[in-house]
Amino acid sequence: MIRAVLLDLAGVVYDGDTPIAGAVAAVERLRKARLPLRFVSNTTRSPRHRIIAQLAAMGVEVRDEELLTPARAALEWLRGHDLQPHLLVHPNLEAEFTGLEGGKSRAVVVGDAGEAFDYASLNRAFRELVAGADFLALATNRSFKDADGELSLDAGAFVAALEFASGRSPVVLGKPSPDFFLAALGDLNCPAADAVMVGDDAESDVAGALSAGLGTGLLVRTGKYRPGDETRFDPPPTALVDDLAAATDWILKARRSETDSGDAL
Amino acid sequence: MIRAVLLDLAGVVYDGDTPIAGAVAAVERLRKARLPLRFVSNTTRSPRHRIIAQLAAMGVEVRDEELLTPARAALEWLRGHDLQPHLLVHPNLEAEFTGLEGGKSRAVVVGDAGEAFDYASLNRAFRELVAGADFLALATNRSFKDADGELSLDAGAFVAALEFASGRSPVVLGKPSPDFFLAALGDLNCPAADAVMVGDDAESDVAGALSAGLGTGLLVRTGKYRPGDETRFDPPPTALVDDLAAATDWILKARRSETDSGDAL
Repeated sequence: MIRAVLLDLAGVVYDGDTPIAGAVAAVERLRKARLPLRFVSNTTRSPRHRIIAQLAAMGVEVRDEELLTPARAALEWLRGHDLQPHLLVHPNLEAEFTGLEGGKSRAVVVGDAGEAFDYASLNRAFRELVAGADFLALATNRSFKDADGELSLDAGAFVAALEFASGRSPVVLGKPSPDFFLAALGDLNCPAADAVMVGDDAESDVAGALSAGLGTGLLVRTGKYRPGDETRFDPPPTALVDDLAAATDWILKARRSETDSGDAL
Repeated sequence: MIRAVLLDLAGVVYDGDTPIAGAVAAVERLRKARLPLRFVSNTTRSPRHRIIAQLAAMGVEVRDEELLTPARAALEWLRGHDLQPHLLVHPNLEAEFTGLEGGKSRAVVVGDAGEAFDYASLNRAFRELVAGADFLALATNRSFKDADGELSLDAGAFVAALEFASGRSPVVLGKPSPDFFLAALGDLNCPAADAVMVGDDAESDVAGALSAGLGTGLLVRTGKYRPGDETRFDPPPTALVDDLAAATDWILKARRSETDSGDAL
């Protein structure tokens, strides 16, 4: 039985500042079907208040507890382990990491720093790692669909650079880390097998969610999707659908057929 | 029988602009023993004429054919495959890649671009790879000992970033590529098993040379060497010695004992 839905944001609900056709109505239909929703985004360039405001401007109301970002997960990790961060994140995100100056040891936190990735800043992070700092990655995405419509390098490339040079492996606090998907379901009292993930990244969203134990992974053809993505990663998506509207059709139909078979018992 | 010696430069013969103690005299002793020498450097920040001039200023005379750099190997590869390069190399090195504008297709060439590694330049290289360009790496070193005495990120980190993001594997034209070591022996008529490599990088110099079939790999404790490096990579060095002077003692002693046993037959 499908009992909760996790939605990726960029490439599924919106592209840049524009909602994807049919996406706002689709979220509304999921809400009307009383399906608990969680928005799980690896976008590590925007602070959470801006993501929530951006969604509201498109007509999608999201409560704070419905949005899980890697920055929120990292903040909790740093607090829990008494660490002060050496940040290699987008300048927009730095304000989310205040109040950690007293941590007993150090941790390099790598997000999608964008233009802030340069040799000097990467080298400082590398030297922290060589000196023994912990290593947290907000995401390991290879690329994202940029404002010009082309793919651009995402945080994962820079995490890979630091991992290769330092010989250290990061704790990953965004998708596709299983802990991240399970944290998103945390307060829903919904077994992973009863949850659906909808994403445009066949590897990070879909294969990641299925590997974490989610019962269903739907790959949409919007956002960064490229033909053939559905066969490139393991496990493959449960289904390939056009967009979030079609994913919603798929989910509501699956619910109906499950309810029907339930009635028949 | 030891019949040829390959020497790494940075960290073995010199550190920055300063010859390592005893290194100049050691090269002289190897020359007096009539051992053919090849200087194999992954330093991809200096043009070859500057490397040769730098060595001459220290009292080490090196002929052009005795110096193999990844840039030289890449130039031959690009010519041989009729490729025009998209360069992500140190500005000092760009002049070594002229005259290739007419190539029938494109190749991304990644070296140690140093401060020239920034988000925009890496992203341009990434997009070339996504569009199908060939992928050449001048080196895959993780780090080098910088002017301030600390380790800094080397080309390998950025090659790893592009490899991870694009899903493409590079052709490596510097150490530890077996082809590179064998090219260095190319005109010497010396079987790999009779050659010695001396380096400060346990992985790229020593394990690389041994994997390529060289008979002996000597790891020096100068340059980027860190205690324990001798057990970190496979195959391990034939011997760990203090510096190039001690490596020369080791080589000349091995030659004497081989000659002695030869005499005894």
